[in-house]
Amino acid sequence: MVVAEVKIELKKGVTDPEGMNTKKALNLLGWGVESVRTGKVFHIDLGEEVSEDEADEMVGEMCRRILANPVIQTYEITIEG
Amino acid sequence: MVVAEVKIELKKGVTDPEGMNTKKALNLLGWGVESVRTGKVFHIDLGEEVSEDEADEMVGEMCRRILANPVIQTYEITIEG
Repeated sequence: MVVAEVKIELKKGVTDPEGMNTKKALNLLGWGVESVRTGKVFHIDLGEEVSEDEADEMVGEMCRRILANPVIQTYEITIEG
Repeated sequence: MVVAEVKIELKKGVTDPEGMNTKKALNLLGWGVESVRTGKVFHIDLGEEVSEDEADEMVGEMCRRILANPVIQTYEITIEG
């Protein structure tokens, strides 16, 4: 079973309202955090029949086509054997 | 600068409609993925004055109090020095 973990994050400089509000909430509860940035994770089960190299390439294509918005987001793929 | 990465995911058995729809979309585009599970990531900058141990404990407390819902979600903390 080949599972890919994809982490999608906002590029530096892109406003992250959810992160800003999370920071505010944490500060109000007494935690002096400096900043919070948010992102998404996908765990994609690719079945048995793909190699790790194929998986990496395939998931890269998925990110570029539908999972991420390359204008404002970056993606990071980890293949978990 | 101590930054904590927090990965929040749905527990096994909890329905993940976003993951199910992502799987459907990937299948329609011709990728035969078996399943997709989604989650969130937070990067929390805790400033200079906390040790890694303190950071781990503090962020655990944040997860239990506001970042995660322990009934349906799990969290995983990684401290990035």
